[in-house]
Amino acid sequence: MKTSKNRMNLLLVGGGADAVNVRYACGFTAPDPFLFLQKGAERHLLVSMLELGRATALGEGVHCHTADSLGLKAAARKSLGKQAAGLIKHLGLKQISVSPVCPVGLVKDLEKAGLRVQVMRKPLFPERLLKNEEEIRHLRASQRAAVSAMKAAFDCIRESRIDKKNRLLQADGSQLTSEILRRKIEVVLLEADCVAEEIIVAGGDQGVDPHERGHGPLYAGQWIVLDIFPQSKVSGYWGDITRTVMKGRPSPEQKHQYQTVLKAQKNALSQVKPGVSGKEIHEEICRQFVEAGFETGLIDGVPQGFIHSTGHGVGLEIHEAPSVSPLGGPLEVGQVITIEPGLYYKGLGGVRIEDTVVVTEKGCSILARCSKDAGL
Amino acid sequence: MKTSKNRMNLLLVGGGADAVNVRYACGFTAPDPFLFLQKGAERHLLVSMLELGRATALGEGVHCHTADSLGLKAAARKSLGKQAAGLIKHLGLKQISVSPVCPVGLVKDLEKAGLRVQVMRKPLFPERLLKNEEEIRHLRASQRAAVSAMKAAFDCIRESRIDKKNRLLQADGSQLTSEILRRKIEVVLLEADCVAEEIIVAGGDQGVDPHERGHGPLYAGQWIVLDIFPQSKVSGYWGDITRTVMKGRPSPEQKHQYQTVLKAQKNALSQVKPGVSGKEIHEEICRQFVEAGFETGLIDGVPQGFIHSTGHGVGLEIHEAPSVSPLGGPLEVGQVITIEPGLYYKGLGGVRIEDTVVVTEKGCSILARCSKDAGL
Repeated sequence: MKTSKNRMNLLLVGGGADAVNVRYACGFTAPDPFLFLQKGAERHLLVSMLELGRATALGEGVHCHTADSLGLKAAARKSLGKQAAGLIKHLGLKQISVSPVCPVGLVKDLEKAGLRVQVMRKPLFPERLLKNEEEIRHLRASQRAAVSAMKAAFDCIRESRIDKKNRLLQADGSQLTSEILRRKIEVVLLEADCVAEEIIVAGGDQGVDPHERGHGPLYAGQWIVLDIFPQSKVSGYWGDITRTVMKGRPSPEQKHQYQTVLKAQKNALSQVKPGVSGKEIHEEICRQFVEAGFETGLIDGVPQGFIHSTGHGVGLEIHEAPSVSPLGGPLEVGQVITIEPGLYYKGLGGVRIEDTVVVTEKGCSILARCSKDAGL
Repeated sequence: MKTSKNRMNLLLVGGGADAVNVRYACGFTAPDPFLFLQKGAERHLLVSMLELGRATALGEGVHCHTADSLGLKAAARKSLGKQAAGLIKHLGLKQISVSPVCPVGLVKDLEKAGLRVQVMRKPLFPERLLKNEEEIRHLRASQRAAVSAMKAAFDCIRESRIDKKNRLLQADGSQLTSEILRRKIEVVLLEADCVAEEIIVAGGDQGVDPHERGHGPLYAGQWIVLDIFPQSKVSGYWGDITRTVMKGRPSPEQKHQYQTVLKAQKNALSQVKPGVSGKEIHEEICRQFVEAGFETGLIDGVPQGFIHSTGHGVGLEIHEAPSVSPLGGPLEVGQVITIEPGLYYKGLGGVRIEDTVVVTEKGCSILARCSKDAGL
């Protein structure tokens, strides 16, 4: 459980958009909505009877309530907003802060109950951006799981054979598909108690649409983008890694594309240190890509080139602050970010190389290392 | 894609609390927040460049926008609220409806931009409660995956051996634990392209805390609660099934406990039909439990007995309307609900039996059948 410096009276909805902040604040998660309330230094949870056992197990630092213990009437139990109003009044408060992602209907319920509601504009827990040792241990564990899964994918592609007739990859006597490879990755992650719903295994032009998960047979001579981002079921922290590989030989253009991304990624990693801004790092990559002859923009109506930002924070969310993009501010020690430049062109395919690093006093440290040899 | 009868001007945030409604409305999902706007019969999406390819693939029924295509200035790109205001103005609207779970900060941004915002109180898509044939096919597929996984768990427990010394279960030469059994279940679900983050395999008194996932070795002579609720990665629809089994012989009290839950569950299934209320079904189970000598309430500070509701709707959310509980209204044809009574006592352990059914003209149909033989 984190000790926050903020001492305001704050209401958060767990199990909804604020679930991650609640998890950060008190370590509790549940599949259905529940309420977290911070009254100065006190922490309170309002949960269903179903969750009371697990909530009570958090220990003395958290006061647990149910609709029963608050003596709420049947009408007040029907909506989370009315339950929230009941809890706030029970604790003797007349006003409360909520996060910007608090459901507007709940805010209306509180106002109807005569309470004053303040919507916070500043980050609720700015300390979430700066990971402590325990958090870095969790992040590293998830990243190591991702690397293990990546290596299993490498092995499978390396050991595959190329069908001379049609350039299709063959493994274990049948066609190797994105789906088969994704399943191999998922099983390795399961063994490490991680889940990953959206693993990308995208071959050829599928890799040009950065959020296409990939489907169907894989071919020799085409880039295969492998983007693995697992979340630990135990700690809740994420890992994030991307590699791009090819079975067979890349064309000279593809080789130039890969070398350009690799060089830009290595340069960016060497630039990361406290005080350098995400914006600078991003713009330097853009500059290098243009210099190497790779333009970005709509080509035949499709965004191509370097079409996303350089990186994002990783923590209890897969995408969180800070941003390594035109919007990115100065980096600080303890921030955990990805560095993931890429170049995407129809015909050439997509190339992206991504590591997750923690910003240190002198630069950055890669959370878990993994080969960048595209030829496996 | 669903054709909704409602023709209002409605803004929803995808990737947040409203993600499920957006998925229902236009079939689109994305890991990061994006905007869905319904203007009368028109559907619009505002997505990042990253998602434009997938969004455009939805076809002509959906108009796709990006910050670029709207010509938004840098300042307006920094917040989702400002982007939303840009889209609303671009479409020539001066007022807009939002759902009760819309982030309050976004509503404030819209108001600041001079727009009138109406928070809807009625369900956005009441037709979501009544599943059409395609949806039932998806639900049945997820439920079948859950049953396959359940059978794999049954096989493993059936084939386990009892260590005479300490009553521990042994499988494949080592102790059988909740974790091992859960992993076997997860692998079967993966093969069916489903994910399930919170499978419950809870032995003995762990099963008395209904949201304890279960951990550590499993014993003969103790109930093992197996609650499997997978979501299809493809369709997004869920399945939900619970069985309770035992290796070795139950005590007379445990046998009575199991038979009481089984009888109540079967009675409840036979009661389900259009017009009967969830409240009636729930109260009948409560009555039967009391009659059989099983009381509900706090015992030694722990909620015990029948401590949850009888059931819930299942669809694109694992817990959705309607409710089969004291709050439950009359059932309608096409609703998909669980029927899952249970009895939980420290010392005896937990017993829960759950099926997912679709309400039909004459009663209900179980989505996928599975043995209820507790002795395997």
